[in-house]
Amino acid sequence: MITGKNYIGNKLSANGSVTHHTINPKLNIETSTPFFEATEAEVDEAVTLGWEAFKTYRKIPGFKRAAFLNAIADEILALDKELIEAYTTESGLPEGRAIGERGRTVFQLRSFADLVSKEDWRENVIDEAIPDRQPLPKEDLRKTLIPLGPVVVFAASNFPLAFSTAGGDTVSALAAGCPVIVKAHAMHSGTAELVASAIIKAAEKTGMPNGVFSNIMGRGRTVGTALVKHPKVKAVGFTGSISGGRALFDLAAQREEPIPVFAEMGSINPVIITSKALDKRYADIADTYASSITLGTGQFCTNPGLILTVEGDNTQAFVQDLAEKTIAIEAQCMLHPNIKQGFVENGQSVTSQKGVEIVGVVEGDLEPNYAASLIATISGADFLANPKTGQEVFGPFSLVVKCKNEEELLKVINNLEGQLTGTIIAEEEEYANLHDLVDALENRVGRIIFNGVPTGVEVCPSMQHGGPYPASTDSRFTAVGANAIKRWVRPVSYQSFPNELLPDALKN
Amino acid sequence: MITGKNYIGNKLSANGSVTHHTINPKLNIETSTPFFEATEAEVDEAVTLGWEAFKTYRKIPGFKRAAFLNAIADEILALDKELIEAYTTESGLPEGRAIGERGRTVFQLRSFADLVSKEDWRENVIDEAIPDRQPLPKEDLRKTLIPLGPVVVFAASNFPLAFSTAGGDTVSALAAGCPVIVKAHAMHSGTAELVASAIIKAAEKTGMPNGVFSNIMGRGRTVGTALVKHPKVKAVGFTGSISGGRALFDLAAQREEPIPVFAEMGSINPVIITSKALDKRYADIADTYASSITLGTGQFCTNPGLILTVEGDNTQAFVQDLAEKTIAIEAQCMLHPNIKQGFVENGQSVTSQKGVEIVGVVEGDLEPNYAASLIATISGADFLANPKTGQEVFGPFSLVVKCKNEEELLKVINNLEGQLTGTIIAEEEEYANLHDLVDALENRVGRIIFNGVPTGVEVCPSMQHGGPYPASTDSRFTAVGANAIKRWVRPVSYQSFPNELLPDALKN
Repeated sequence: MITGKNYIGNKLSANGSVTHHTINPKLNIETSTPFFEATEAEVDEAVTLGWEAFKTYRKIPGFKRAAFLNAIADEILALDKELIEAYTTESGLPEGRAIGERGRTVFQLRSFADLVSKEDWRENVIDEAIPDRQPLPKEDLRKTLIPLGPVVVFAASNFPLAFSTAGGDTVSALAAGCPVIVKAHAMHSGTAELVASAIIKAAEKTGMPNGVFSNIMGRGRTVGTALVKHPKVKAVGFTGSISGGRALFDLAAQREEPIPVFAEMGSINPVIITSKALDKRYADIADTYASSITLGTGQFCTNPGLILTVEGDNTQAFVQDLAEKTIAIEAQCMLHPNIKQGFVENGQSVTSQKGVEIVGVVEGDLEPNYAASLIATISGADFLANPKTGQEVFGPFSLVVKCKNEEELLKVINNLEGQLTGTIIAEEEEYANLHDLVDALENRVGRIIFNGVPTGVEVCPSMQHGGPYPASTDSRFTAVGANAIKRWVRPVSYQSFPNELLPDALKN
Repeated sequence: MITGKNYIGNKLSANGSVTHHTINPKLNIETSTPFFEATEAEVDEAVTLGWEAFKTYRKIPGFKRAAFLNAIADEILALDKELIEAYTTESGLPEGRAIGERGRTVFQLRSFADLVSKEDWRENVIDEAIPDRQPLPKEDLRKTLIPLGPVVVFAASNFPLAFSTAGGDTVSALAAGCPVIVKAHAMHSGTAELVASAIIKAAEKTGMPNGVFSNIMGRGRTVGTALVKHPKVKAVGFTGSISGGRALFDLAAQREEPIPVFAEMGSINPVIITSKALDKRYADIADTYASSITLGTGQFCTNPGLILTVEGDNTQAFVQDLAEKTIAIEAQCMLHPNIKQGFVENGQSVTSQKGVEIVGVVEGDLEPNYAASLIATISGADFLANPKTGQEVFGPFSLVVKCKNEEELLKVINNLEGQLTGTIIAEEEEYANLHDLVDALENRVGRIIFNGVPTGVEVCPSMQHGGPYPASTDSRFTAVGANAIKRWVRPVSYQSFPNELLPDALKN
């Protein structure tokens, strides 16, 4: 059923001659289907169809868009084993994870369907006229949110379902009334095509206009660049590396008409552990964090890549214990060879810096795309002196910084780049003294976790997934939760309008 | 009382040697005070003070920030005649306008004071824990909005009070908890210094940290560039020309850490008048629009610079009547010689294009900075063929486009760049046929007005002042109304937090 073709609107299309294969990282072999990179003309056709579809799709009532989203969820579930097999084959992730992530994807679809089945997500405001106001009468003025136009979504490699073809960016944009053109991740093109086929089926069954969704294949940057530069594209969503996200942000900012790019990029997610917490329960903390660091082979944007401590009696014991427990967890496969290569290179880059000591690393021969988990340590002074020690190592890696005192710890936090999350592990008797720490973290992160782990991102209204640059390109928005829809809409005011011409949400 | 110096925090400072004078445009002479351009060191000092002030100011409770804003309003009123005199001298605008605009400025200050005296503007969300949820427990998660950091505000020349030193950008940023560094408009530096002195007095009286506000002088782009590139600046507000706003947007996007720029820029504010409306009441419409076009010498961002009609029996009579009534209104002074020069040059550029006919223009000798109001006309086909006919002519100018039919009219609208406003003048019996027109306008503008004029921007929650590029650089936000505060804040989530460490707004 996987054809290797693009979906240009409802039509399968493969007019180009450039192809690529996906890789089964566990077997370290290419899969058999050639995937056809979209040509310039196919890219233009997809966006133009999206633009035409926008004219009607933006006006389709919320409950019908909700039916479309629910139908996508149904069609994804109907793909059943074929989808799970493509997912596990192309990602190297286990079946349990595939099923869990499919559940999250379906939940996101149904959550946004619920959200837009009523109109109150649009922040509707009605200010009625005051004809006898002095010195001037006040006109009737009403405001709602309307969709921006066609949105391009770049799929994430590390969530082949939940942040990919029918993932959070796509579903929030479709919910808002924006057609979506997905640039499939080249390393899970088969999974992408299957999910795209589910979206197209759902669109046809629920009577959505042709062009409301397209799925574009391609390796390298040609196709993505053409999409972001296309004048009919009005916004971009991206999840991935800092270099990739920044390149798209720059392209979008340099357009004649700049467009918003919401890129969710790198983060090392600092975890601050007080020495009291280590004194009381370092072994428990080491247990919890060994699991968190290696979860999904460390391939989460919220992976705890940096642990900050103030050196005390049990710091060294904790570091040892964490390292032992981390490397005791069976080595797992990474998403694809490029991710493995990046993990090795960036890990070596950090561990070769002055003052960095490897405390534990998985030794011996591993299968080609399996990751050797690694725990290293460094002093606060060395960490502060050298920005290279703070670079992201995407994978099962964490660097423990041993600060000499609280002051140095705060300096380290204030010196960090923007992060998705920050975590505090502390004892109850210390809470009253933690205000400065919370303050410092607030300025650097989008979410602060107390006595927990940063991995695990709840889909709910109070979730903030995004943070100061480079965690994301616009910290004012979130990529997860109901408010993710706000990235793709803008307010319009209607002054002194006849009731019949107002959008339904604003009528008397 | 006007010293010509910068306010670097609470301190008057003039370490530089570059000076400029403001101009009395009515007399066409320079005013006497030399204003000192801030040096690079003064710029850095102002931003660094702002950064230091941010650490405490962001934590000051809302009711205290409200007291600060109300005190600014009081101090502005206390400047009394001195302020009105500086305003009218430097702007050429009449005293009535000065008093009206001061009223608006005070109203904005008090509105934002009201808004932030309670904490619900922060969109607080509390999702409580569900410990027994299956398959995984749900953690307690709460979200609120926190300020971004120091904000740089570029003052608008056309609103020396309401969109300037203590104008909408400044007050919304201060309300949010962001220190503000204003780059004063060079052509009303004296007015700016007086208002800055009121802000500083208010800050001292209400115990705000030094650096919560600075006022930076300068002509040209040196000082503004240094401000936008400063790493401790976290957002920018701007009101002015497209070229100015775009230059700042580009600078901000090219930073190592890109920052949001909200620039409210050019707009020609299309007004669509149906031929039925012209048949029934063209003389009334001409009256209303002659006033709107010349209001404030046409120097409003919502000035109706483009009138779209479908040619009918009374179109020519309307155009003649509009031209006669517009040029019958006494010529008025423009803000400064550069604005006058731009008005003349851009007007000549438009009227020299193929197919443009001048229907009426104020003739004879005018004082140097006074504007000769001008009404011109063009066919829909010529307008569509030549983008230069759609450029903004800032001042009392309007171009009437005569389309041959509805289809051409819609084509003209779809072809327009983004606009702040669009207006529809129509008869009640036509309403049922106007859905396509409203649809087309929705995609191009931020506010649609029915049977009214675009000039006059109400300060209320339902106001949208901003639109697709180039009306503004981010159509998702507004420069006027309560939501203007959203430009300067970002969400933060708190997961499993002890009650005592939560921000007050999120506590149990």
